[in-house]
Amino acid sequence: MQLGMIGLGRMGANMVQRLMRAGHECVVFDTDPNAVAALEEQGAIASTDLADFCAKLSRPRAAWVMVPAAVVDTVIDQLEPHLEPGDMIIDGGNSYYKDDIRHAKRLHANGIQFVDCGTSGGVFGLERGYCLMIGGDTAAVEHLDPIFAALAPGAGEIERTMGRSGAYDRAELGYLHCGPNGAGHFVKMVHNGIEYALMAAYAEGLNILKHAGVGRADHAIDAETAPLSEPEFYQYELDLPRIAEVWRRGSVVSSWLLDLTANALHGDPELTTFGGRVSDSGEGRWTSIAAIETGAPSPVLTTALYERFSSRGEAEFANQLLSAMRYQFGGHHEKPED
Amino acid sequence: MQLGMIGLGRMGANMVQRLMRAGHECVVFDTDPNAVAALEEQGAIASTDLADFCAKLSRPRAAWVMVPAAVVDTVIDQLEPHLEPGDMIIDGGNSYYKDDIRHAKRLHANGIQFVDCGTSGGVFGLERGYCLMIGGDTAAVEHLDPIFAALAPGAGEIERTMGRSGAYDRAELGYLHCGPNGAGHFVKMVHNGIEYALMAAYAEGLNILKHAGVGRADHAIDAETAPLSEPEFYQYELDLPRIAEVWRRGSVVSSWLLDLTANALHGDPELTTFGGRVSDSGEGRWTSIAAIETGAPSPVLTTALYERFSSRGEAEFANQLLSAMRYQFGGHHEKPED
Amino acid sequence: MQLGMIGLGRMGANMVQRLMRAGHECVVFDTDPNAVAALEEQGAIASTDLADFCAKLSRPRAAWVMVPAAVVDTVIDQLEPHLEPGDMIIDGGNSYYKDDIRHAKRLHANGIQFVDCGTSGGVFGLERGYCLMIGGDTAAVEHLDPIFAALAPGAGEIERTMGRSGAYDRAELGYLHCGPNGAGHFVKMVHNGIEYALMAAYAEGLNILKHAGVGRADHAIDAETAPLSEPEFYQYELDLPRIAEVWRRGSVVSSWLLDLTANALHGDPELTTFGGRVSDSGEGRWTSIAAIETGAPSPVLTTALYERFSSRGEAEFANQLLSAMRYQFGGHHEKPED
Amino acid sequence: MQLGMIGLGRMGANMVQRLMRAGHECVVFDTDPNAVAALEEQGAIASTDLADFCAKLSRPRAAWVMVPAAVVDTVIDQLEPHLEPGDMIIDGGNSYYKDDIRHAKRLHANGIQFVDCGTSGGVFGLERGYCLMIGGDTAAVEHLDPIFAALAPGAGEIERTMGRSGAYDRAELGYLHCGPNGAGHFVKMVHNGIEYALMAAYAEGLNILKHAGVGRADHAIDAETAPLSEPEFYQYELDLPRIAEVWRRGSVVSSWLLDLTANALHGDPELTTFGGRVSDSGEGRWTSIAAIETGAPSPVLTTALYERFSSRGEAEFANQLLSAMRYQFGGHHEKPED
Repeated sequence: MQLGMIGLGRMGANMVQRLMRAGHECVVFDTDPNAVAALEEQGAIASTDLADFCAKLSRPRAAWVMVPAAVVDTVIDQLEPHLEPGDMIIDGGNSYYKDDIRHAKRLHANGIQFVDCGTSGGVFGLERGYCLMIGGDTAAVEHLDPIFAALAPGAGEIERTMGRSGAYDRAELGYLHCGPNGAGHFVKMVHNGIEYALMAAYAEGLNILKHAGVGRADHAIDAETAPLSEPEFYQYELDLPRIAEVWRRGSVVSSWLLDLTANALHGDPELTTFGGRVSDSGEGRWTSIAAIETGAPSPVLTTALYERFSSRGEAEFANQLLSAMRYQFGGHHEKPED
Repeated sequence: MQLGMIGLGRMGANMVQRLMRAGHECVVFDTDPNAVAALEEQGAIASTDLADFCAKLSRPRAAWVMVPAAVVDTVIDQLEPHLEPGDMIIDGGNSYYKDDIRHAKRLHANGIQFVDCGTSGGVFGLERGYCLMIGGDTAAVEHLDPIFAALAPGAGEIERTMGRSGAYDRAELGYLHCGPNGAGHFVKMVHNGIEYALMAAYAEGLNILKHAGVGRADHAIDAETAPLSEPEFYQYELDLPRIAEVWRRGSVVSSWLLDLTANALHGDPELTTFGGRVSDSGEGRWTSIAAIETGAPSPVLTTALYERFSSRGEAEFANQLLSAMRYQFGGHHEKPED
Repeated sequence: MQLGMIGLGRMGANMVQRLMRAGHECVVFDTDPNAVAALEEQGAIASTDLADFCAKLSRPRAAWVMVPAAVVDTVIDQLEPHLEPGDMIIDGGNSYYKDDIRHAKRLHANGIQFVDCGTSGGVFGLERGYCLMIGGDTAAVEHLDPIFAALAPGAGEIERTMGRSGAYDRAELGYLHCGPNGAGHFVKMVHNGIEYALMAAYAEGLNILKHAGVGRADHAIDAETAPLSEPEFYQYELDLPRIAEVWRRGSVVSSWLLDLTANALHGDPELTTFGGRVSDSGEGRWTSIAAIETGAPSPVLTTALYERFSSRGEAEFANQLLSAMRYQFGGHHEKPED
Repeated sequence: MQLGMIGLGRMGANMVQRLMRAGHECVVFDTDPNAVAALEEQGAIASTDLADFCAKLSRPRAAWVMVPAAVVDTVIDQLEPHLEPGDMIIDGGNSYYKDDIRHAKRLHANGIQFVDCGTSGGVFGLERGYCLMIGGDTAAVEHLDPIFAALAPGAGEIERTMGRSGAYDRAELGYLHCGPNGAGHFVKMVHNGIEYALMAAYAEGLNILKHAGVGRADHAIDAETAPLSEPEFYQYELDLPRIAEVWRRGSVVSSWLLDLTANALHGDPELTTFGGRVSDSGEGRWTSIAAIETGAPSPVLTTALYERFSSRGEAEFANQLLSAMRYQFGGHHEKPED
């Protein structure tokens, strides 16, 4: 079938390619004409603006929006005047599910369907397929089924879950209609919240391994330095790339994120190309807000989020204040960096 | 080659079977004669006590100890008198690496080699192979290489890490000599520390999904209840078994633990057979202690550990105290359970 | 001067009394006529409904609303028709500062002033005075200064902050105009976020002291129980009421919350009257949401909040899931409660 | 009575002065002769080495050791040969209670008493008195009672705990015999663990207030930056010194640490003299280890500890790893510092 794609960045462009490989027709638009031209060469139908984009879509139109969360509002506002009742907007980016609910309400009032689709897979999605978490009315979601099926990974080589047999459930093919509007992004949001914590688990653990030789260093003896009473227990020099590698086979912690960690560490064991300022892009925040608003205790997820804030220097004033208090009650001066 | 196995519980018995399948000879002992008899039927050489066990091992003896951490000391004490210089003890259980260092020191003084081997894989290890993290002198570890190779998963179908080519590194076969004594259990310890946090990440995230319908319930209006200002955003009823399933394909959070989660949720979506008292068996504690002693910040790992303590009611007095303080300053009475 | 008070619960009624003691005139209203009558006996001017309430206030009217956050909207809606330009509404409850901004915008459009006032002090405020954190336009805040001064504790016996001299700053008298609308409740919100964490700090610490005798108990030896390798270090039976008491004098952790803790523990060392289901009333949640939205890492504050959720059983499904995973990979069965 | 003091740093020197003011005789020693001379001028009996120190003490000798935890062992080793049965060593520093138990066992075997005394109060202790938490045999502790009473703050002006009346309990005078050896430092250890978390609570909360104006700044719109959807809610510029000040009066969060915070912020609102590298000196670590070993969930305390590690750059490798993973799965490049 046919799909229109607005936003041809890393994600959007790869998704268009995957759809075309599966035989679907794609009309594409991006504010960057080079991104449009690149896909036109591969067989996509180019468009020059949103009016042109909508004119080139057959009815009912299906317009997939794949842009940063902060500009989704603007794109929908600009798109809507070119649409007609029965058309569909799919937001496949990392939008806040509360915005979906708002968008759906407004668009439904004008007869336009809105579908929210959380999309996981990153740069590997082109080959590996995208895991899709979908929210919206059943009719619209069913109409788009061939698109979702083509984007999703399919059953692949993965062993079936115990107890499942017979025809494959769509969830086993890698896409799921999660519920009414917002449900898709809600599930994707929590997916990313989990992702942050999984990443933090590996990062903290490997950092401990990195510290396993602290007993080999000289250790200051003064009232400002916690004593290391048994340095003989911290004499190791561990090979982190090989440890990540061995955990990939047969261990309880094997995962796709660990595979990526092994890639990164094998290529650059000291990770010298990274400074350690870790971005967060919204979903981790929204997951924690949902945890707070629903009363679901999630200290591991939220602490992982906060570690990213701290990595970017956002704890600095708090830390200065701790040193200031220590100076106040104990006359403690800060120790300079080694 | 030949290996002696002491401790024929879930782990030890399966490991003996995997070794025998690979053509190795196993002498076995357990305080439960039924466990010994069961393996004897499958071809293992039974023994009636540790003296008999040692008598049946050819020299240099290799005695693998697979018992709870709390009884390793006793077993080693009872085993040592029956051993001779050049013999080897392998502790394959979940021992504290600091105990390894102590054991190795004492045994080395008597000419006996000690090898610590962290073993991951659980009940699936028989078929899937065990991920082995090994510490000890190179000579002993090399001598035991055929045993480790047979227990480990091998390269399997897993895609190679980017940049690796040519002959397989042992880490790619699922076993690794991590360093001197204790290094094996140190790496396994941190592995388990990570495991706790990975598990907590999924558990917290799925618990948020479980709470996604709190807006559908009546919400008390009083000074003791946090207001839910926008209940329209929490109206979902999500299908957790299918969500775990869809994440297995193409998503960033796919992992073996997620596969197991999908198994569990598909079989029993409400998990009614579990009360939620979560055990911890030492390594998570030791990982956090190592984090503290080395100064490696690990709030995600340690918080995951503490959640297990809390699940067993260990926060009760702290919580009573919080209610007591609230009563003191605000006259707040506890709300009864709904 | 004159103030109208709507909401005569624990807080509102005491504040009226404190104001009358300072010579101010109070018009009072509550949906419970008994609450109104009780204050009328003490000299307040009773009113029978909001129309009557407003009729009895001299212009410009100053109506202080002291009701649960969840009903503030309703009260303001009902109050507004009876007010005129130049009148003032003060929200002194635990409202969300975002609601203040919304209320202020709407009321200002009709010429009515809105002042948000975070009020700390609890049931002790009648005697001790209330700490007031105020947001709103300067003119309105200045107009109400005599009211704030009477409610606030004043300079009291507290030692002056180092470097302060001369005339007292209002902050030293216990009230502060923090900024434009919402600023008062924003500061109060963070105050309560801090409060939760202070309380958690004492609760967790005293809970460790409570556990200091675990080495005296029998300790199971099995693969489901973390070993306690050196029980000799956990043989204490500590006197918690006396420990809280001794910390009140000269220690770094002395505080008003510790005074209250000492009260609670002296009266009931086992805290048997509390079940440990700890309420939270909004501000702790909003503080964490503000931390997340502003990117200010606050794991201690948020973890303290989550502990309250857990105390009320909200982690149950997460814990069941952890046990389910352990069963899946290791065949581990849950241990029953001792 | 008479006391010998070894270690005349910030703490030891002030304690000698406080004792002499109360009429006690002090024999003093320090490896720095200037420190000895300074106290000699004020009336203390100087000594030139430990032999001289012991010779100048009347029997039974009471030698108070006030040195960094890491050198206590050495000092006790050097002191012991000069002591006789019946003499007493008091360790008043920040030692690990497990070391106390070890020291006591060894010294008792030679007839020497050992008393552990956790001492809180910092540089203010000279005037304010020291809060003392004492462990050891009752006879020795009773013998030293006049010393403890002189060092402790006494009842002071502090309101009595509700329900207490009659003669003052020693806890009300600021010192407490907590139990057998180690109990004093155990209680002091947990005291400091609590202290870290109290400090973190204020630091995190004030840091949120510091961030309350993020909506005023430009906000990048790209896939690496979490959107700030409602910047109008973060427009405040708050006066932190005054906020700390106002909280000192009548609020639930008033405390001695808040008094110190007000001092620090009033003198230097931007805390420019502190870089934010926060030391930890052992007790916070030991508290968390005790929490882990006893199974008492303490995520707030431990997270506060880890924040100090992070403030010193110890999370750097973990953060680099997070960025490396993000690059692997999403092609995300780190954003440079603004």
